[in-house]
Amino acid sequence: MLRLLGSLGRSCCSSAKSGFKIQPSCISKIWFGPMPKDSNWIKPGRLHYIENDVEKQVDIIKTIDGVVVILYNKAREKLIFVRQFRGAVYQGIHSAGSPDMSKGEADLEQFPPEVGVTLELCGGAVDKDKSLAEIAKEEVLEECGYEVPTESLQHVYDYRSGIGTSSSAMSLFYCEVCDAQKVSAGGGIGEERIQVLEMSLEESRQLVQTGATTNGGPSCLLGLLWFFQHKAPKVLA
Amino acid sequence: MLRLLGSLGRSCCSSAKSGFKIQPSCISKIWFGPMPKDSNWIKPGRLHYIENDVEKQVDIIKTIDGVVVILYNKAREKLIFVRQFRGAVYQGIHSAGSPDMSKGEADLEQFPPEVGVTLELCGGAVDKDKSLAEIAKEEVLEECGYEVPTESLQHVYDYRSGIGTSSSAMSLFYCEVCDAQKVSAGGGIGEERIQVLEMSLEESRQLVQTGATTNGGPSCLLGLLWFFQHKAPKVLA
Repeated sequence: MLRLLGSLGRSCCSSAKSGFKIQPSCISKIWFGPMPKDSNWIKPGRLHYIENDVEKQVDIIKTIDGVVVILYNKAREKLIFVRQFRGAVYQGIHSAGSPDMSKGEADLEQFPPEVGVTLELCGGAVDKDKSLAEIAKEEVLEECGYEVPTESLQHVYDYRSGIGTSSSAMSLFYCEVCDAQKVSAGGGIGEERIQVLEMSLEESRQLVQTGATTNGGPSCLLGLLWFFQHKAPKVLA
Repeated sequence: MLRLLGSLGRSCCSSAKSGFKIQPSCISKIWFGPMPKDSNWIKPGRLHYIENDVEKQVDIIKTIDGVVVILYNKAREKLIFVRQFRGAVYQGIHSAGSPDMSKGEADLEQFPPEVGVTLELCGGAVDKDKSLAEIAKEEVLEECGYEVPTESLQHVYDYRSGIGTSSSAMSLFYCEVCDAQKVSAGGGIGEERIQVLEMSLEESRQLVQTGATTNGGPSCLLGLLWFFQHKAPKVLA
């Protein structure tokens, strides 16, 4: 229970610190069940190996590679984020306090859907036969509504996520945009419900102050630290 | 094939840049198989939800929470890292070029075990009923051989890893150590085979230069960027 409260506290704390409020969710029901064998997203497996004559195993999943984009509207000095409901985050927080509740309906009073709403940088899956920069460019348009040339995507880092269990290849980019490139509202494609959010540099800097907490992933913190070190106006870096 | 070469290139490139050489592996065989239903590490599941009257699903896994420690020997100006074989990273690189090779024996000539050896900060799983700082303190001792008081662990960030699929809670700490606290060689406990590695600040800074590539996770890059912003001698920051 202590850990559960800790997790909830983290999310609330983060929102309060960053100055934006979590909006009412449009999610009316959440429930858990078994993963089907033909999942499109996750392929589980076991890797066996012999190290120093000792046989070892590790259970792993194959997931999809991804791109992440630090998006900066330079003229207006705003960083652009996305928010969305992440089932894995919701489940992680939900199961921390009640590890036996892996199946059945979630308790939305104790765990409102908002605890699974993350603050992230723009990004998406590498699920097309295109260059990473082209995929990043498409995500910038689909999620945030900016039409940018591929050349404006600066490569920042390549790394692997979830190295203990999944290890997809991740590529982080930086991209400056201007209002003239804003061609749509963004928000994702199809059934995606992604909220676009602009933050001032001062608000963004609070997200990465020492001691900060987020229910988003490390890529957002990483991208922000890199931005403040390399791109932010010096008075704020 | 292009992506495969890209992945391999990333690892080699990273090692060359950082100045350390990947040592001959003690791993003699690697093979893949199905994940058993009773895995201790991964619990797969599907989360269903109704958003704006549309039923949606996401496949997720439950994994174990973790701690990560930026470890700095201040007197000698060395950052302390660990290296280990990560099955998930190996599989991720292996499967990128040959997506149909999810089962069977790995080709160690084309994919030597070294491609799965990561460079990471000290860290470990939250699998005991202790405070996060106490667990971090134990990992510092077990992996790196430094006996430190819990009070010397400074909390840096809380975040969630793998927010698309797994979302374990991660806590990043900073800890300064001195040679007098070095009580053992480290290297892990039981069958763990963890190599401890010291790097100069200049070598470490190259790891996070713009355009860098690592087969480790974002936590290491994040910890290093935070360190250079807040703790490194100013001439190097």
